[in-house]
Amino acid sequence: MHGVSLYPLKQIHNSKGDILHALKVSSDGFVNFGEAYFSEVKSGEIKGWKKHTKMTLNLIVPIGCIDFVIFNEEDKAFFNITLSRDNYQRLTIEPGLWMAFRGQSPGASLLLNIASIEHDPSEAENRELEEIAYPWS
Amino acid sequence: MHGVSLYPLKQIHNSKGDILHALKVSSDGFVNFGEAYFSEVKSGEIKGWKKHTKMTLNLIVPIGCIDFVIFNEEDKAFFNITLSRDNYQRLTIEPGLWMAFRGQSPGASLLLNIASIEHDPSEAENRELEEIAYPWS
Repeated sequence: MHGVSLYPLKQIHNSKGDILHALKVSSDGFVNFGEAYFSEVKSGEIKGWKKHTKMTLNLIVPIGCIDFVIFNEEDKAFFNITLSRDNYQRLTIEPGLWMAFRGQSPGASLLLNIASIEHDPSEAENRELEEIAYPWS
Repeated sequence: MHGVSLYPLKQIHNSKGDILHALKVSSDGFVNFGEAYFSEVKSGEIKGWKKHTKMTLNLIVPIGCIDFVIFNEEDKAFFNITLSRDNYQRLTIEPGLWMAFRGQSPGASLLLNIASIEHDPSEAENRELEEIAYPWS
C-alpha cells in the first residue's frame, strides 16, 4: 500500500538477553525524530481509528503480538499485518492513512512508536471503531 | 553524579492499554537521535561493564525491573538506581562513565536505549564484570 513500508529488523541472540534493533538515523525510510513513546494494548482490545496528517509513524513490537490494519480512505483499501518477535519488522506509516491495532497475545502487547514529530492532538483525527467497517476476525 | 540525569516520565492510564512516554526532541537533556534499540536482560543476569566515549544513552524500562550501576573511574564513585514501571524515569548517561545493569524481575526485563549516535564498536570499551568491584547484593 502506498505510504506503508515494512523493514525487517535484526534480533541478536545473547544468553543474558537479546538485543533487538529498532531504528537508526541512517535506516531506510527514516524521516525525522520527534518523539518516542510506548502504547500497550491488552489481549483482544482494539485501539483506533486514528489518522495523522503530519506524523510519520515507525512501529515496532518487542513484546507480544499486534495486528495492524491500515485503511486508505481514497481507494477504500485495507492493509493488514501482524507483528511480533516472530515477524520482527518496523512498520512505517506516512501521514494520511487511518490505522487501528489489536492485541493478539495473552496479557498486554507493547508497541514502540518512533514518530517524526511530537504528539500534537491538532494533527490527528479519531473515528470510532465501527465508523470504518473492517472484518476483525 | 556528574553526567547522570534522571527525568520522570508520564504513564497515561487507558483501559485498553497504557501509554508510556519515553523521549521527545524537546525533552530536557535531549542531545541527538542516532539509534533506538532494545536490550533484554534475564532475571539475575548482569550486562556490563561498558563505557561509551561518544554516545549519550537515554535508558527507559517499560517491562520488568532493572538495576543500573554507573561507575566514575576518576573519583571511584558508584551511582545506583532501579528503574521499572513503579519508578518510571528516563536515565540519561553522558559519555565517559562505566555502566552495568542487572535484570531484577522474573523473566526478561526490557530496556530501550535511545542513543545520540548509531552503534559503533570503536567508541565503546568493555570490561569483565569482576574488573570493577561492585557489591552486587
